[in-house]
Amino acid sequence: MEEAVNEKDAHHMDRKLLIDSLQNEDMEKFRDEFLDLHPYDQASFFKELDEETRERIYHYLSPEEMATLFENLEMGDDNYQDVLAEMTPNYAAEMISKMYVDDAVDVLNELEKDQVVSYLTIMDEEAAQEIKELLHYEEYTAGSIMTTDFISISANQTVRSAMYILKNEAPKAETIYYIYVLDDEKRLAGVISLRDLIVNDDDTMISEITNDRIVSVSVGDDQEEVARKIKDYNFLALPVVDFQNHLLGIITVDDVMDVMAEEASDDYSKLAAVSDMDTIDRSPLSAAKKRLPWLIILLYLGMGTASLAARFEATLEKAAILGAFITLIAGMAGNTGTQALAVVVRGIATGDLEKESRLKLILREAGTGLITGTICGILVTITIFIWKGNIFLGILVGISIFCTLIIATLAGAIIPLAMHKFKIDPAVASGPFITTINDIISILIYFSIANLFMNFLPK
Amino acid sequence: MEEAVNEKDAHHMDRKLLIDSLQNEDMEKFRDEFLDLHPYDQASFFKELDEETRERIYHYLSPEEMATLFENLEMGDDNYQDVLAEMTPNYAAEMISKMYVDDAVDVLNELEKDQVVSYLTIMDEEAAQEIKELLHYEEYTAGSIMTTDFISISANQTVRSAMYILKNEAPKAETIYYIYVLDDEKRLAGVISLRDLIVNDDDTMISEITNDRIVSVSVGDDQEEVARKIKDYNFLALPVVDFQNHLLGIITVDDVMDVMAEEASDDYSKLAAVSDMDTIDRSPLSAAKKRLPWLIILLYLGMGTASLAARFEATLEKAAILGAFITLIAGMAGNTGTQALAVVVRGIATGDLEKESRLKLILREAGTGLITGTICGILVTITIFIWKGNIFLGILVGISIFCTLIIATLAGAIIPLAMHKFKIDPAVASGPFITTINDIISILIYFSIANLFMNFLPK
Repeated sequence: MEEAVNEKDAHHMDRKLLIDSLQNEDMEKFRDEFLDLHPYDQASFFKELDEETRERIYHYLSPEEMATLFENLEMGDDNYQDVLAEMTPNYAAEMISKMYVDDAVDVLNELEKDQVVSYLTIMDEEAAQEIKELLHYEEYTAGSIMTTDFISISANQTVRSAMYILKNEAPKAETIYYIYVLDDEKRLAGVISLRDLIVNDDDTMISEITNDRIVSVSVGDDQEEVARKIKDYNFLALPVVDFQNHLLGIITVDDVMDVMAEEASDDYSKLAAVSDMDTIDRSPLSAAKKRLPWLIILLYLGMGTASLAARFEATLEKAAILGAFITLIAGMAGNTGTQALAVVVRGIATGDLEKESRLKLILREAGTGLITGTICGILVTITIFIWKGNIFLGILVGISIFCTLIIATLAGAIIPLAMHKFKIDPAVASGPFITTINDIISILIYFSIANLFMNFLPK
Repeated sequence: MEEAVNEKDAHHMDRKLLIDSLQNEDMEKFRDEFLDLHPYDQASFFKELDEETRERIYHYLSPEEMATLFENLEMGDDNYQDVLAEMTPNYAAEMISKMYVDDAVDVLNELEKDQVVSYLTIMDEEAAQEIKELLHYEEYTAGSIMTTDFISISANQTVRSAMYILKNEAPKAETIYYIYVLDDEKRLAGVISLRDLIVNDDDTMISEITNDRIVSVSVGDDQEEVARKIKDYNFLALPVVDFQNHLLGIITVDDVMDVMAEEASDDYSKLAAVSDMDTIDRSPLSAAKKRLPWLIILLYLGMGTASLAARFEATLEKAAILGAFITLIAGMAGNTGTQALAVVVRGIATGDLEKESRLKLILREAGTGLITGTICGILVTITIFIWKGNIFLGILVGISIFCTLIIATLAGAIIPLAMHKFKIDPAVASGPFITTINDIISILIYFSIANLFMNFLPK
């Protein structure tokens, strides 16, 4: 039992040993321990060091070793630049050239244009060329997350020769578990898994065991589409082709998981009107900076609502009790609108929307609003009647809730649908935004109905 | 160019051909086409058929072929039961026994207890035993999503013999890309990738190339923790061990992607107060059923707010203009609370919170609220002064916004933190819920301050 690996303790031990060896300038001991770690753990350790200690690490590790660490380094947008600035330009350029090309492109995309150019200039020419080819793909497309480090063969080979190619290319390739089969014109003709190679005899022809029902993505496809396909089909990688079906690159499952986490976090943050980069390790000033733009927009939208409500000051003067129900009605409008918004945004994100027609969805939301509006309207009428003893007040608030829920539900569905139609990311129509619009709608409805009921309300 | 595979068209052709062959009862043609499809496409096709046509498919496919389809079938909770009821009990039981054991468990977990027992009874005993072992793990733990279909070897073997074992076990194993190395007492001693086997000579001893820095999870660990590790370390699978480090099973990356999608969708839906199962393909009645529980809770919470506001009726009577700003102040409280909530819930979901202390986070949110409150408070004071020409009204609303933003930001952070501490999923503290609490707080603050300013307000 004392052999059982308690992972947390193991990590703590590493950390102390590593820091000690760095402080004692014991390079050999440091390398022994450090290079034995998983690159993700190397990166986690590295990230928490101060600049001086990090500079020692650049002396202890080769650019190639540093490249492996860097591939696993997750950092805020500006930070890559700072870390690279700590290295000599030559060291940095060589490190970038040794990284998997898709990871190298991710890092370079965070830098200033002239910095990118300068690194590419001093870099090994072949690596620079490979990176340049990927650098020009638009962000969030399949092209921007693919790698060109894949293994391809032609169909007229045997399993034996395929295994030979595999062994040779294994050290450089991002995955060796899928091998792509190309025709004479370098077009994607099929895919074969290492599993297929293993279970078949050495003399089997590749063409016999190739799977030619290939699922691929186009280089300009959205990265969410890529993630969906890999997830649905349980692939470890997906080929990326141009419009003539030439194989340009592959996207591996690990990169897709990062995309999924990023997109989920993005949608979530937008629903709450927070910039995605606001994470819990930021300073209050930095957090406030991320939130204030939204808050100030919403503040002035809210003032718009207030100025609308102010126009009903005379109504409020006649029956102050009406003021008590403003938050209830506006709140319910916000709630139901956010629900509809979330369902539609998720429908778009999961791709379900493509299968449904927009009109059908809008009718469905109208129906849903009708049902929830009727039930909530009746409940509120009865409750207020019992509580305040005035059936007219109950009916007024009940009808307002009924109308509000229908219209607010529809607004919550139609606004993101319209944005999607016009190619705007519907998640931008965040919860608070929809809520504020629904505030305005609900106040208009409420006071308009209130004016009709004026003579029946308690003074 | 005419050879370029347009995937959508390809799918459409399949569909028509398949439906024709089913209608003509041409079993051979159907099997030819259908078994050539990727299981995910088989499942998508199957899902859209009516019951009668599906029953024909059960006659055309063996339980084993049906098992592959079923592993890729994504369905709502009650639907598995309906589909299984269409099959004969023997066919269904045999199909379940042929599925990957983790997928079989997923399906059985959706059924009634007595149905599970009856399927397990008529099933092949070995398969039933394997399923039973996994059935008792709690939902959302590593144990509940792991599979026992993994490949393990002992360390004192050569690459050659390992490859031999691999070839034999490949058809049944979920992944052949990682092989787990066990010691004499069946404890996890290391892991070796197929990549390592391929690049090393046949006579190399396994012990020489085993990686003994294993990252594993405990069987009771949360599935989110599993997803985080696979994502961070870029693994294709992760071993699951008991407290004595015995290897119990593995979790593969494809299952983890489903977990990630599920959890993201879950958090998102909760922030908007929608039950996760409300998707856009539901009927209005079914959608309303999913949303009404939340709406009714929020309705009565809103009535609580209203009854609180009603206590300030006298204040409103004296200065009806106050009513105009209720939605502004309550709205801003809701917005800032939702922002803080989202940041904290995401911090918990990504695991960042573990690295930060709760107190530090609360202090940070207090600081953030102070900054946003000051800026928004000043803006609103100036704007209202210019608009209404009454500096006291401006100061009243400004101070209310200032206090509200600080307290609402704190509430948005403290409530999910407290829930997390008491092991309640903080995502349950949905946006609308926090918003309603903040409505109440903001109204109390607003009217309390208003009473102090009463003599200076316009009548």
